[in-house]
Parts: sequence; structure tokens; C-alpha cells
Amino acid sequence: MSIILNETHDADLRSWVASANAAGSDFPIQNLPYGVFRRSGREGDEVFRAGVAIGDSILDLRAAFESGAFAGFGETVHKAIVAATAGSNLNPLMELDAAAWSALRLALSTLLRDGSVHQSQLQAALVPQAEAEHALPAQIGDYTDFYTSIHHATAIGKLFRPDNPLLPNYKWVPIGYHGRSSSIAVSGQQFRRPLGQLKSPTSDTPVFGACKRLDYEMEVGVFMGQGNAIGDAIAIGAAESHVFGLCLLNDWSARDVQAWEYQPLGPFLAKNFASTISPWIVTIEALAPYRAAWTRDAADPQPLAYLDAPEVREHGAFDVQLEVLLQTKAMREAGTAPQRLSLSNFRDAYWTVSQLVAHHTVGGCNLRAGDLLGSGTLSGPTPESAGSLLELTAGGKQSINLNNGETRVFIEDGDTVIMRGWAGCDGLPRIGFGEVAGTVLPAREV
Amino acid sequence: MSIILNETHDADLRSWVASANAAGSDFPIQNLPYGVFRRSGREGDEVFRAGVAIGDSILDLRAAFESGAFAGFGETVHKAIVAATAGSNLNPLMELDAAAWSALRLALSTLLRDGSVHQSQLQAALVPQAEAEHALPAQIGDYTDFYTSIHHATAIGKLFRPDNPLLPNYKWVPIGYHGRSSSIAVSGQQFRRPLGQLKSPTSDTPVFGACKRLDYEMEVGVFMGQGNAIGDAIAIGAAESHVFGLCLLNDWSARDVQAWEYQPLGPFLAKNFASTISPWIVTIEALAPYRAAWTRDAADPQPLAYLDAPEVREHGAFDVQLEVLLQTKAMREAGTAPQRLSLSNFRDAYWTVSQLVAHHTVGGCNLRAGDLLGSGTLSGPTPESAGSLLELTAGGKQSINLNNGETRVFIEDGDTVIMRGWAGCDGLPRIGFGEVAGTVLPAREV
Repeated sequence: MSIILNETHDADLRSWVASANAAGSDFPIQNLPYGVFRRSGREGDEVFRAGVAIGDSILDLRAAFESGAFAGFGETVHKAIVAATAGSNLNPLMELDAAAWSALRLALSTLLRDGSVHQSQLQAALVPQAEAEHALPAQIGDYTDFYTSIHHATAIGKLFRPDNPLLPNYKWVPIGYHGRSSSIAVSGQQFRRPLGQLKSPTSDTPVFGACKRLDYEMEVGVFMGQGNAIGDAIAIGAAESHVFGLCLLNDWSARDVQAWEYQPLGPFLAKNFASTISPWIVTIEALAPYRAAWTRDAADPQPLAYLDAPEVREHGAFDVQLEVLLQTKAMREAGTAPQRLSLSNFRDAYWTVSQLVAHHTVGGCNLRAGDLLGSGTLSGPTPESAGSLLELTAGGKQSINLNNGETRVFIEDGDTVIMRGWAGCDGLPRIGFGEVAGTVLPAREV
Repeated sequence: MSIILNETHDADLRSWVASANAAGSDFPIQNLPYGVFRRSGREGDEVFRAGVAIGDSILDLRAAFESGAFAGFGETVHKAIVAATAGSNLNPLMELDAAAWSALRLALSTLLRDGSVHQSQLQAALVPQAEAEHALPAQIGDYTDFYTSIHHATAIGKLFRPDNPLLPNYKWVPIGYHGRSSSIAVSGQQFRRPLGQLKSPTSDTPVFGACKRLDYEMEVGVFMGQGNAIGDAIAIGAAESHVFGLCLLNDWSARDVQAWEYQPLGPFLAKNFASTISPWIVTIEALAPYRAAWTRDAADPQPLAYLDAPEVREHGAFDVQLEVLLQTKAMREAGTAPQRLSLSNFRDAYWTVSQLVAHHTVGGCNLRAGDLLGSGTLSGPTPESAGSLLELTAGGKQSINLNNGETRVFIEDGDTVIMRGWAGCDGLPRIGFGEVAGTVLPAREV
């Protein structure tokens, strides 16, 4: 897991796709994230297929491959582009190794660079992002959610267990649990407010009804590449070579359902009604210039050996800014822009991606290409960096005043939650994640 | 969910497959469970495909279909047999509805009956079970494990929380959590003893090592048929029409890993290293004669409306006996038969299959055909009906004396745990589940 910077990271690279060179674009030529798309309204005659975001466009990988532009790149690139264009998701590409992903990235960087001889050939393979719709980038076999923000764990712990906020295992075990893969959808997901059993603290018995404390969770999603055989483990030093890339993840949560159901086996209906991810997967290689040291307080225990490695300490973290915005129905109708609720950073997580992969497999559990790991809510140390409403409203006790005069304690019907993420500042290229948006519809009538 | 008995349940039916008529056979003509198989050692030239157990044989459905034996049965049967033979798992058949499953069952019953004109045609489609190997019967999208035995929940609760064994939500909420689908394998699974963080009660810090408290859990698995759209719910009265059938499930558990990791988000590495299921799925229709009333103590709360229906109370439970046996390495080497550890009954579960399906979907979570639900450990009210070693040994404090002079507290390397299940007695046909066996190998060296 040494950090290799190569010509694809060169900040001076420019693309013949002019919009990729615009200041503030999420998708300069240094990024090249993968997604699955088709042109909107073409259900009948277009299949979902792999693409790479470049500026305001998508490079249709199948069309690009068929144009012959990849012909001169040798066997590794050929294998990678064949895998990327084999089906309607990225799983075949994910199943390859980091060398294949890196070779394909270099080929894409070469083809999309200013001055590429393939410009005219590839022009026809560009689709405007504004004309595209997305599907999940992978078939997600299993989804695991972690709990890597100590700030979030402490804040939530105070609400659920005032006497015992941070449990004794937190600083030893990268706490995680299995989530629901069937209800994960791509940005734009609209879902009904969940129903469930709710029990007020003042009542002895629950009632059935619509969730009253609906929340979002700002998370980073980790898409696995090549997996491991059952019974084997992925060593911490090799962990990132099994990670295909990162996305944004909104792990919607029904706090009232959760409070009543979660003991002793963890959250269930509180989380499985919907989860929304961004369409683009930013590769680990694209984020190489934005790595950060992984540190913990001097008083904290040292990690057990299977969770420790020099390279994890040196640059195991990712310096990715994470923004949550809210657009209420009233804002949408008035044409008002979404309002920021928080800004946090993935760097502040207590456990790194490598540690999650090493921990997940250390007992013998097998990961598969396309599996998704969630970071857990990424809250920072300050109040304005809290990645959920439960934290921002102190457990629903303090309402948030919105700029248009509305207030919020939890999510209301018609609200759209938007999350954005990006690395890069001070003149370095912006490696953007795009955004993930999800909208809550009224509950099913009962 | 009315219980319909039809000619396929006739206790006097006999098959031209003579072994199906033998007393004690798990697979008489009244059963007809589905699985996926190929002949052993034929990796190169045989694919895994669907079959139906009959006596000591398997009816190869593809070969049977190709023989033309299904020609005279009409459109519904045609659709069902096409789905059953479409791929290498049962998902396409599971995606059909209960009417299609029932029509196929009647066709199979007719074809395999004594006197069938198709006997000579189908003889070539029979494969001896002794010559077959199995794969998972379905591609399992999501696996959910429940906790339906109040006897188990109380016994375990006493060990983990002596002051608070049965939590207040237990009698209201069918407690469940999401499990790991990637590590589920079919009977015969051999897996390494898991490694993980272990913390003794007398130490402040954990150590990393091999699990010392490895256990099994005797469960029934529920394979879903047709699913629901996200945001919709499956009503309790319709729930069983979405269930394809039942199998046996061993939910292996690392108790020491679990004790340290499980708060606050539930079991994770303690459960995801391996789970083993039986090769055969017994259909709900086959179990119709063995339904039982669902009852709870008079002092217990009445279920909320979405979990209640007259038919659930009348016959929501299944009278299925569940036996756990142990064969140690020493027994195997001495040719000693496995020794029974417990006998329990699925009927004693606190929640029924219909309630699990209704609860799982009530918040809007979508189930998909091939999804697996586990019942949770099925312990009965008596000590000898405890479905895990944790219960049988009082939390590891009382060792079990085996007939060959060995003792056990938890599972040791080389041990094989075998589970069997069956309905039927008093002259009624035995609807057997076959067995699920799994063997523990030494831990990976670290």
C-alpha cells in the first residue's frame, strides 16, 4: 500500500473535453471515476453500461472500446476494458487486480488528454451527464456497515445510553454489522417514509405507525475489488489492493424504530428500508495525492497487530470533505438552492479503510467483488461537522432554523437530502464524488 | 393461507421409485423437496441443476423435462418446469407464485406415482443420491437471521445479561438482524475455526487468537419465493404465498468473539465465517398436514395487528422435529455413529414464518426470491431441547459426557455437527428434511 504517484496525477494534465478543465469540476482528467448509465428515456433500446465521468460528460466505455481507441495498449488494458464492457455492471472489472485497474486508468488518461490522436474517434462515445440516468454500479452481494467515527459513536451513545456512551470495545474493534443490500439504490432514490413499531419512553407498550424520527447518515461507501476465499484473511498491508474505490452513501435511519428494536442484535428495520449511493466510484488510485496520516490520541490503546501497519499510520486515511445539504419541498418549489447542514472529513474516522477490510476478513469471512462497506456516519469533532440530524438536533431536542424560515428536527415528507464529497484544494485537482440525492415520500397508508 | 390438502398429500400414495415407499425414508412421494445437484466428480461435463428428492434418488428435472414427460400438463406446469430447469439454481422457480409451485408439485406427484405411464421414460432421469453432490439451491441475495425461540433468548440472555435476560421488546418485535450471505454453503461444508478478538472477563484488554467457544445453532431456514417491491409490505395473510419452502440451517457462532464485539450493533465476525444449510428445500405445501396452532402464554401481550391473523393463530406453526447430533473425529475413526445432543420442535418458536415475513417487509424493505431467513436457534422448553452448546453446557460451565468417553464443552477441531429434521408420525408420511452436516477444521495459523 505504498502511495504511488504517476503521470495520471499530474496536476497540469488537461483534457480535450473542455468542461473537465473548468475550475470546480468534480471530474477533471485526474479523477476518472466509474459508473453505470444509459441515456434517459432509452429503456427500450439502450442497456445500462459502464462509463467514466469526464467534465460534464460520460465516456461510454463500450462505444470507446468499439471505436478501436484501446487497440494499442497491450494485454493488461485489453483484459481490463473487456471486463469493464462485459456486462451491465462493474463486477467483472472489480474482480481484476489493482494492476489492471491502474493500467486502464493510464489508458483512459492518455486517451482523454489534450492532444490525444483519438479525440475525433472518441468524441462520439461521449454522452452528456445531463442526458444520462444511472443504475447501481455493481451487483452488491453483501453490504456491511461500520461505525468508524468516534465523534458519532460518542454522540449517539450519549442519547441511547447516557451512562455509557462509548462502549469499552470501541477503541479495539472496528465495530460493524451486516446491512441490507436489496434496498440500496443509486442517487435519485425516492422512498416512502418507513412504518414500524414505535415506543415512547413514557409508555410500556409500542404502537404501529409511521416513523417520526427519520434521519440521514453521511457515509463513505467502499466498493470491494477482488475478494478472498472463505477461511483466508486479507492482511492489512494488502487490504487496499482489494478495494476498487469509494462512493458516497446515505444510510437512512429511522431513529424511533431503532431505539425500540436494536437490542440485543442491532439495527434491522431501522435501516433496511432504503440506502442511497452516488453513481460514481472514485478509485483508490485517483485519491493517492490526498492521503493522510492515521492517528489516534496518545492515551488510546495501540491497535492489535492485524489492524496495524506502518503504511496505515503514515497515509491510511483519506482527506475527503463531506457536505450534507437539505432541500425542502418549499425550497424546491421556490427555486431555492439546497442549504448546507454540515461539513465533515473522512480523515477524522477512527478506523481506516484498510483496517475495515482486514477486520472483516480476519475471522475467515469471504468478501466478493462488488460488496459494499459503509464507513458509518462520518461526524467530525465540531458541532457543525455532525453527519446526522440526531446529532445536529441533540437527539431531536433543538430544531434547526433554515434560511427560508422553515425549521427541521428530523426529515419531513418531500425533503431531499443531498450529499457531496471532494478531495483537493490549494490548486491541486479536485477529485469530486459528484452527489447522492434522495427524497422522502409520505408513508404508505395503513 | 388456508391449509389445502389435496391428492398430493394422500398418505396411501406410493411411488414406482421403491425406496420412496420404505418406512423411515425422508423422501416419500408426499414430500418432493427441491435441490440443486450434479453427479460427483463430473465438474468438467455436468452443470449443477435442479432436482427433486424421491426415496434414495434424485429426479433430474432437466432430464425429465427433456424426456417429454411434462408435455400433457398444461401451461402453468410448463411455465414452472421451464423456470425450474432454466439455470443452475432455483431462483427462477422461486420467482413464480404459489399456484405454479402447486401445479408443478401435482405434476411431479402424478409422474412419480405407482402406475404412472411415464415410469420407463423417467427412469433414466433418476440419479442415486449417493452419487450426487450439491450446490446451494439458490443464489441468496440477502440473509436475515431471527431470534424466534423465547427459550433460547431467555437462556442466552441469562448468560450475556444476567440481570436482564429477556429484553422488553422480545414479546412485541420479531427480533432479527442481517447476516452474511457470502459464507453460506451447503451441507458438507468444512471451515476453519475462526480467529478474532477475545477478551476474558478478568482482563481489561482483548487478545487476538482462535475462537475457544465455537458453537452451532439449530435453525430452520426459510427460502423466499416471489418478493415485494421496495416500499410495499407483504400482509400477514399473504405472507406464506411468498415463501418457497424450508430447510435446515446451522448458524455457527463464535461465542467469545460475540461477547466482546456485539454491543451496540449486534453480532458480526461471531457469525459471518460460515453458515451451513441442508441441500433440500421442503415446500410449504408438503408440510400442510403438519401445521400447528400458534399460541402464546395468556399473560403475554397480543401481537400488533400487522403480526396477527386468524389463520396464523389456527395453524401458523409447523410441527417439525429437529435433531442435533455430534460425530467427533474419534467417533468417525472408530466408525461410531453420531450421538444425539438435542431434540426440539419448530412448533415451539415464539414467532411464526408468516410473522417474520410480515415484520421484515412492514417498513418497506424488499425481499427477493432466493433470500434466506433464519429462524434463530430453536430451543424448546426442556434442557434436552436446547439448540446450542451454550445452552446445553450452561454457558460452558458443564461439560457433556459423550458415549465414547470424550467430553465436550464447545466444538473441537475435527468435530462434525449433523442436524436432521422431519415432520410426520403415527402412520402419516414422514416429510424429511434430510440432513445438514458441517465439520470444523483447525484455525488458520497466525
